[in-house]
Amino acid sequence: MTQRKSFGSDNHAGVHPAVLQAMLDANTGDVVAYGADDWTARAVAALRSAFRCDGEAFFVFNGSGANILGLSTLLRRHSAVICAESAHINTDECGSAERLLGTKLLQVASPDGKLTPELIAPKLDGRGDDHRAQAGVVAVTQSTELGTCYTLEELRKISDFCHASDLLVYLDGARLANAAAYLDCTLADIAECADVLSFGGTKNGALGAEALIVMRPELVDPVQYLRKQQTQLASKMRFVAAQFLALMEAELWRANAAHANAMARRLAAGVRDVPGVSVVHPVQANAVFARVGAAQIKGLQKDWVFHTWDESVSMVRWMCAFDTSEEDVDSFVADVERSVRFT
Amino acid sequence: MTQRKSFGSDNHAGVHPAVLQAMLDANTGDVVAYGADDWTARAVAALRSAFRCDGEAFFVFNGSGANILGLSTLLRRHSAVICAESAHINTDECGSAERLLGTKLLQVASPDGKLTPELIAPKLDGRGDDHRAQAGVVAVTQSTELGTCYTLEELRKISDFCHASDLLVYLDGARLANAAAYLDCTLADIAECADVLSFGGTKNGALGAEALIVMRPELVDPVQYLRKQQTQLASKMRFVAAQFLALMEAELWRANAAHANAMARRLAAGVRDVPGVSVVHPVQANAVFARVGAAQIKGLQKDWVFHTWDESVSMVRWMCAFDTSEEDVDSFVADVERSVRFT
Amino acid sequence: MTQRKSFGSDNHAGVHPAVLQAMLDANTGDVVAYGADDWTARAVAALRSAFRCDGEAFFVFNGSGANILGLSTLLRRHSAVICAESAHINTDECGSAERLLGTKLLQVASPDGKLTPELIAPKLDGRGDDHRAQAGVVAVTQSTELGTCYTLEELRKISDFCHASDLLVYLDGARLANAAAYLDCTLADIAECADVLSFGGTKNGALGAEALIVMRPELVDPVQYLRKQQTQLASKMRFVAAQFLALMEAELWRANAAHANAMARRLAAGVRDVPGVSVVHPVQANAVFARVGAAQIKGLQKDWVFHTWDESVSMVRWMCAFDTSEEDVDSFVADVERSVRFT
Amino acid sequence: MTQRKSFGSDNHAGVHPAVLQAMLDANTGDVVAYGADDWTARAVAALRSAFRCDGEAFFVFNGSGANILGLSTLLRRHSAVICAESAHINTDECGSAERLLGTKLLQVASPDGKLTPELIAPKLDGRGDDHRAQAGVVAVTQSTELGTCYTLEELRKISDFCHASDLLVYLDGARLANAAAYLDCTLADIAECADVLSFGGTKNGALGAEALIVMRPELVDPVQYLRKQQTQLASKMRFVAAQFLALMEAELWRANAAHANAMARRLAAGVRDVPGVSVVHPVQANAVFARVGAAQIKGLQKDWVFHTWDESVSMVRWMCAFDTSEEDVDSFVADVERSVRFT
Repeated sequence: MTQRKSFGSDNHAGVHPAVLQAMLDANTGDVVAYGADDWTARAVAALRSAFRCDGEAFFVFNGSGANILGLSTLLRRHSAVICAESAHINTDECGSAERLLGTKLLQVASPDGKLTPELIAPKLDGRGDDHRAQAGVVAVTQSTELGTCYTLEELRKISDFCHASDLLVYLDGARLANAAAYLDCTLADIAECADVLSFGGTKNGALGAEALIVMRPELVDPVQYLRKQQTQLASKMRFVAAQFLALMEAELWRANAAHANAMARRLAAGVRDVPGVSVVHPVQANAVFARVGAAQIKGLQKDWVFHTWDESVSMVRWMCAFDTSEEDVDSFVADVERSVRFT
Repeated sequence: MTQRKSFGSDNHAGVHPAVLQAMLDANTGDVVAYGADDWTARAVAALRSAFRCDGEAFFVFNGSGANILGLSTLLRRHSAVICAESAHINTDECGSAERLLGTKLLQVASPDGKLTPELIAPKLDGRGDDHRAQAGVVAVTQSTELGTCYTLEELRKISDFCHASDLLVYLDGARLANAAAYLDCTLADIAECADVLSFGGTKNGALGAEALIVMRPELVDPVQYLRKQQTQLASKMRFVAAQFLALMEAELWRANAAHANAMARRLAAGVRDVPGVSVVHPVQANAVFARVGAAQIKGLQKDWVFHTWDESVSMVRWMCAFDTSEEDVDSFVADVERSVRFT
Repeated sequence: MTQRKSFGSDNHAGVHPAVLQAMLDANTGDVVAYGADDWTARAVAALRSAFRCDGEAFFVFNGSGANILGLSTLLRRHSAVICAESAHINTDECGSAERLLGTKLLQVASPDGKLTPELIAPKLDGRGDDHRAQAGVVAVTQSTELGTCYTLEELRKISDFCHASDLLVYLDGARLANAAAYLDCTLADIAECADVLSFGGTKNGALGAEALIVMRPELVDPVQYLRKQQTQLASKMRFVAAQFLALMEAELWRANAAHANAMARRLAAGVRDVPGVSVVHPVQANAVFARVGAAQIKGLQKDWVFHTWDESVSMVRWMCAFDTSEEDVDSFVADVERSVRFT
Repeated sequence: MTQRKSFGSDNHAGVHPAVLQAMLDANTGDVVAYGADDWTARAVAALRSAFRCDGEAFFVFNGSGANILGLSTLLRRHSAVICAESAHINTDECGSAERLLGTKLLQVASPDGKLTPELIAPKLDGRGDDHRAQAGVVAVTQSTELGTCYTLEELRKISDFCHASDLLVYLDGARLANAAAYLDCTLADIAECADVLSFGGTKNGALGAEALIVMRPELVDPVQYLRKQQTQLASKMRFVAAQFLALMEAELWRANAAHANAMARRLAAGVRDVPGVSVVHPVQANAVFARVGAAQIKGLQKDWVFHTWDESVSMVRWMCAFDTSEEDVDSFVADVERSVRFT
């Protein structure tokens, strides 16, 4: 489709060579299916250690699978989820949470994609009234769908508020690596605030691998059954586990994410002074959101792949990946400048 | 876990080299995610052609995912599924069909895992009575969970009966390749009898790839949304598609399946005259079901991996894969003989 | 609880004497259960005639039951519902639509509780994108939860837009009688715009009886099974049907609703000039929404039952019923005036 | 439909006069809706006392509603239900448990409709294997769908086995009154064995009223929300509660049930010696199951309403109600004798 680097999504990228090599290395003879193998045991151990997790780690195929499994682990049968309007589970999963979990998403408008105790609190107004949906879980995304990151302090405030308010915390970590790289903290530092969280591999150099980290031991028991029921149990599990072994080795996940973040910063810096272009959100993870003229967008999209995020306000999203190069960014920035100058 | 070949399952095997190579070949630069790429287009085209399918092919992660997606495509909101008691959807998916689809499975006892119009008909007794579950879909498995294969004539009879009885046909083809190899027919020959069917790659040399073949164009429209809702949409789809490209190339799928079938026949032939061992079902696909003394089972399982299928009748399942060698079989048969002789 | 008339809800009222009498009259000997009786046949015929319905009428226990059954009749497995934020299905049924139907509610902010084609259209933006929820049904409420009524012209515009946009229309008619009385039109006039609608009895003098009117014959077939699955099939159905026989007799439903509407108008007229009280929405059905000082609300609620609708803006709802008398209204208005004067 | 007494079902009967009177008495002025009224408080208190229940009682509309609510109270999200093949939830609710709860019913063949620890145990074989449905609840029916009653000792054995096996017990008590009357025990005596149970009013003289008795306080919290989500919350609740007030008054429920049981015994005694008629199950509650010639069945059904239970073995069910008279029975028995003599 394009020879040029895509700025459309971090999952337009291919697979990191170390990840592919780990998969090749795992292809040696027979092992028991469904996760009772040594690769899985080692990958789980690596994750439990990195997250300082007393519970368990479970591999699934993709981000939606992790979100549904994570929420199902925390939700009681009758309870609802509080999330930002921009949350992936609300906007980009085709109604999967409602469809598979039967849960209502109580949506909070949030300009930067982040929740706060103040934004969460009003959704508890109907507590105890059997006509109203009863929130049981708060879902946050780190880094957010808008390329911003919660500080550890912000997460702690949410976590404290939730646990004081009989709410459990699910953290959608499809781009958790980018947040940890930005905050220069450990995965465990972030995980502390969550009861269950996902850790995305696919957008960070894996072929297709996500982990669900269940922090609390008392939540672990039903997860294996929920995973199977939700069709997220891989038979040749070693090849999913091997991907995480590669990402965890010497923190390859962090190097990949840090690089993608740096490329996004470079891109934002490059376009910041271009007249007619305004960067919208703080560029903290690997995405740049910008407003550009509609004609410019159209022109650029002839040569480059990226998404128009909100046509009504002429906003685009430019996403960088583990393998976006400085040359890719510079070449794209040059085209942005050119498109503005000549239109 | 074991240096010896596993007879536990065809998914204890690794990945066929040609499949892995195709995945490596697909790792070239960026492509659009979620299936809008060339690999996916070519793999879908190959499947549509092989199945003589006027509808569409959809890739999913695993067999349970294919079954749930396939059934959801055919089921009306209120309707139920007729299947054999031994059907994978009934016994081996942790209640996924009930959980994700809300459908009742009307189970039919069937000694060889096959349905017939005569076995299906009684489940229609309550038609029109709003207290009774209303069957809308019949699910057959080819080859069956018991290693048997429907003949094309048997399938046609089921299909004719169903379509005359306002029933749609779903075919679980996790081991469809083994059936086509056994029957020495095309995939299309089998697919004719179904409205929707799955075609398994994983148990036949893939890393993790299954296809759902929607035979009728008028059923295609909602499938993409159902797949996404059911968390079965891969972001880096090209790597799933590439697996099928390899399997479809010069009918690698058939070679793999035919070999596995041949190994099962060799195994069955090898043990058939061993006193105290009795082969239970016709060995048509790649599984051998046999009754062996409980002590022998215990002894053999010290050295070999295989499942006790039904402890109450001392029945085991020995499964062959695309990479089971004649030496593997002969060595195992020798051990079976030895275990009988010395106990 | 209170000797004074409640302005809390139209379901605080008891049962209209004619309805109770019809139930007593139905208690004669044995009849077949589940609706295969003469009372049911006659009540269904009366409804089909009044709605000019070529499809079928089904009785259920309550409004939530009717809404869920109605939506389930129209929704495809994957599709979502567009509704006003203030819709009863969104705010007052504890997440039942998501829980029982697995459907996402795409909510539209609407100050007067009404939808328009212009408000609906943006929710179709993601059509064809498998990441986005796919709207299949638009749910309107007539009269609305805010006491307003769509004109027939407004409904027709919605209906035309929806049917041109591959959307089906569900109409929540828990207070349909009040709308028909206000518009001085037939039930059929309103029903024309809907594919399926509910017709509420309970808030209009029944003990507990709602009807689902399925306008189009091709939609009828699965409804009986859906009703049973959704636990809304009454065994002694004659006693539900009898309630509707009474309400349909000489349009008792209209007399009851017209009276309740008139009382609401009287109440609104009475308080309109009271300083510190402002009526918020047009008073078209049987509800008055008003802003009153917080202290006054507190004071009035010592003697009268009514709901604070939105504490943040000090808004209350005063609801009139079939049996609210002019004296009830006048006495309440007098207290409102007094409460303002003395605080 | 028929002037003669129906032997088709105990819900072909009308409403007991005392129940209707209680409903009339409740129609006095306004009360708060949804159960916050005095009738409901008194009826709940009466039930809690009669069941020696430390938890709570909840009213619902019908038996299916009670079953679904009860099971949803006990089931974890992933768990399955063990029940007899003949259980109402399995055969007569159109797949409601699967549809609304997403749970699998693990069915046990049981000739007399009763479960035992020995019948339950094999369904636990797959425990801990994530491919197998995981039983979490055992559902028993008392009296059973086949007219038999568990002894208190039998129930205790099931209860002990279940609680020792990490299984919760749901008891479907649609005809609990008939069992208590047969066993000459209190409702509490039976309830002891269950974690949650239903108590049917409708088949025992009510118009439409069932109660869910949640025995353990720690299970109570989510039930009100589950009831609302499952569309089983009555708005004019006092009229449901009033029915139970009447039934609980001086144990009217027991008198009604004892009478129905006695009529069934009289019927069974009457036909026992008729050649060509054989009573199938012990007649303990208010049903008689009998085998009669196919021609006789056809002949009798010209004049009398009753169900053919199993056409393949020419078995019928004759059901007695609170208002079946000795004359009704004798007249029916006479016709049975006649039908046999003249064919």
